[in-house]
Amino acid sequence: MLRPNSPLLGGRAPAPTPTRGAVDPALVERVVARVQEELQLRAVPGNPALRGTWQDQSGLQRLLGGGADRVGTAGALPAGGDLRGLARAIDHTLLSPTATRKDIVRVCEEARAHSFYSVCVNTTWIGLVAQLLAGSRALPICVVGFPLGAMATPSKAAETRQAIADGAAEIDMVINIGWLKGGDYDAVFDDIRAVVEAAQGRPVKVILETSLLSREEKVAGSALSKAAGAAFVKTSTGFAGGGATAEDVALMRAVVGPDIGVKASGGVRTADDVQKMLAAGADRIGASASVAIVTGGTGKGAY
Amino acid sequence: MLRPNSPLLGGRAPAPTPTRGAVDPALVERVVARVQEELQLRAVPGNPALRGTWQDQSGLQRLLGGGADRVGTAGALPAGGDLRGLARAIDHTLLSPTATRKDIVRVCEEARAHSFYSVCVNTTWIGLVAQLLAGSRALPICVVGFPLGAMATPSKAAETRQAIADGAAEIDMVINIGWLKGGDYDAVFDDIRAVVEAAQGRPVKVILETSLLSREEKVAGSALSKAAGAAFVKTSTGFAGGGATAEDVALMRAVVGPDIGVKASGGVRTADDVQKMLAAGADRIGASASVAIVTGGTGKGAY
Repeated sequence: MLRPNSPLLGGRAPAPTPTRGAVDPALVERVVARVQEELQLRAVPGNPALRGTWQDQSGLQRLLGGGADRVGTAGALPAGGDLRGLARAIDHTLLSPTATRKDIVRVCEEARAHSFYSVCVNTTWIGLVAQLLAGSRALPICVVGFPLGAMATPSKAAETRQAIADGAAEIDMVINIGWLKGGDYDAVFDDIRAVVEAAQGRPVKVILETSLLSREEKVAGSALSKAAGAAFVKTSTGFAGGGATAEDVALMRAVVGPDIGVKASGGVRTADDVQKMLAAGADRIGASASVAIVTGGTGKGAY
Repeated sequence: MLRPNSPLLGGRAPAPTPTRGAVDPALVERVVARVQEELQLRAVPGNPALRGTWQDQSGLQRLLGGGADRVGTAGALPAGGDLRGLARAIDHTLLSPTATRKDIVRVCEEARAHSFYSVCVNTTWIGLVAQLLAGSRALPICVVGFPLGAMATPSKAAETRQAIADGAAEIDMVINIGWLKGGDYDAVFDDIRAVVEAAQGRPVKVILETSLLSREEKVAGSALSKAAGAAFVKTSTGFAGGGATAEDVALMRAVVGPDIGVKASGGVRTADDVQKMLAAGADRIGASASVAIVTGGTGKGAY
């Protein structure tokens, strides 16, 4: 069961008011149970899509990670006061369609200089980024099916395979929002599962695009992502209006528990924003204003 | 040579003022010559990417279609006064990431009822649309690498192959905007060429995303699209702010000549908008407000 005073529900200092009590455990349980029920309906013996994921889990309690009262990610939190410590939680991101080779080179230099966790780009650039980051601590990562998530499943899988071949160390895919809204949970699950399989063990993050979803849809999307083998759930693409909120991060963390990650992205532009997201339960941040964040500035709105 | 009074430069009645004189022939020639020069630099004998396209063309004059003074598309113009006649020029479009199966079914019913030229969707839905439109006049078509155009070339090709296998009759791809802006014309050409080859003879439209481009980039993008075998150049995704303008349509038509199509999309919401685009040189319209257009209304902003 979720405990209202769980560290993941706002108990971690500094605990911003908006995240306290933001999660309705009854809602989470109801939606997760419905997702589980629907998926189990089709869990016929020998269905390879389910083997090793959903069927191995012992129901709701397992999906919730044994209760969301453990903090699996405290190590990622920065030392108080030193903004540079935030860098290792940040995916330094450049997803603008107008970005040129020169822009990509600059972002990779920034990632080396500031020790960001990774550089996150569109798949056009992942080969170049892998080359430029070789020998550094920063990982080359990329988005898939981005930003609409409405690409056919085999094509999302193909884009993932190509990205892995080009050197991607992590994949940030967009969930199929239309299927999620239509209640086609089977199709949502298969879509994520196909990308997870194509990623061959590399971590897959599933972007829910929270600004377009109801609370029930956010819960269902988080539950389906975890069930399908995602390594992270992630709030936003940055392209749909709206971005990460502490309330959404807390809700997503409550659903997935401590076993997998929560990435806050979209509109995170200051060190304060980052701290707020980490306090709400995030353990990875997506930002393009990353240099401003770790040097105490405020970034402009950008992708 | 372009003639200032060519029908394609605004001479077709009704000729809206903004399109008259909007095209600077010197600019077009300069940029097209530069594109041509760069591509020829790498036109080594036996390069399969160029065979049958660029190398067969006798330079600038050929690229410009023997002068842009013929109107190849007058047949697509509607009979005056009858708005229903516009329907055959319209790709009835639903690209919102939140679209559900129910929305897709509705759009296909509308396409049957109003005889739209096609239904244009994301690749998630192309199989369903092909099934729903079977036996009707409306074609199932879809977008690829959408809307950023920043997907790796092999993945755009893979998405195209999958879409064709699922029943797509036409492909609307997004150009690689970053490469275009960086002057990487070789890469832009190869990207389009890969999709054209993957489409196996089905018409490919190349979306330039004009609102993000300079005039020189619009010209270069149009020239590269035609050289790489595109069947249409197209203005906008509808997702980048800004949409089709009569000025851009006239410029694109001036570059590609009458041999290939020009599709105006983004912000086209009334029959007046459609007439303006057709008068400027468009021969296909992308719209989600299609039913309002052919019934004399004004559509809402949507994808």
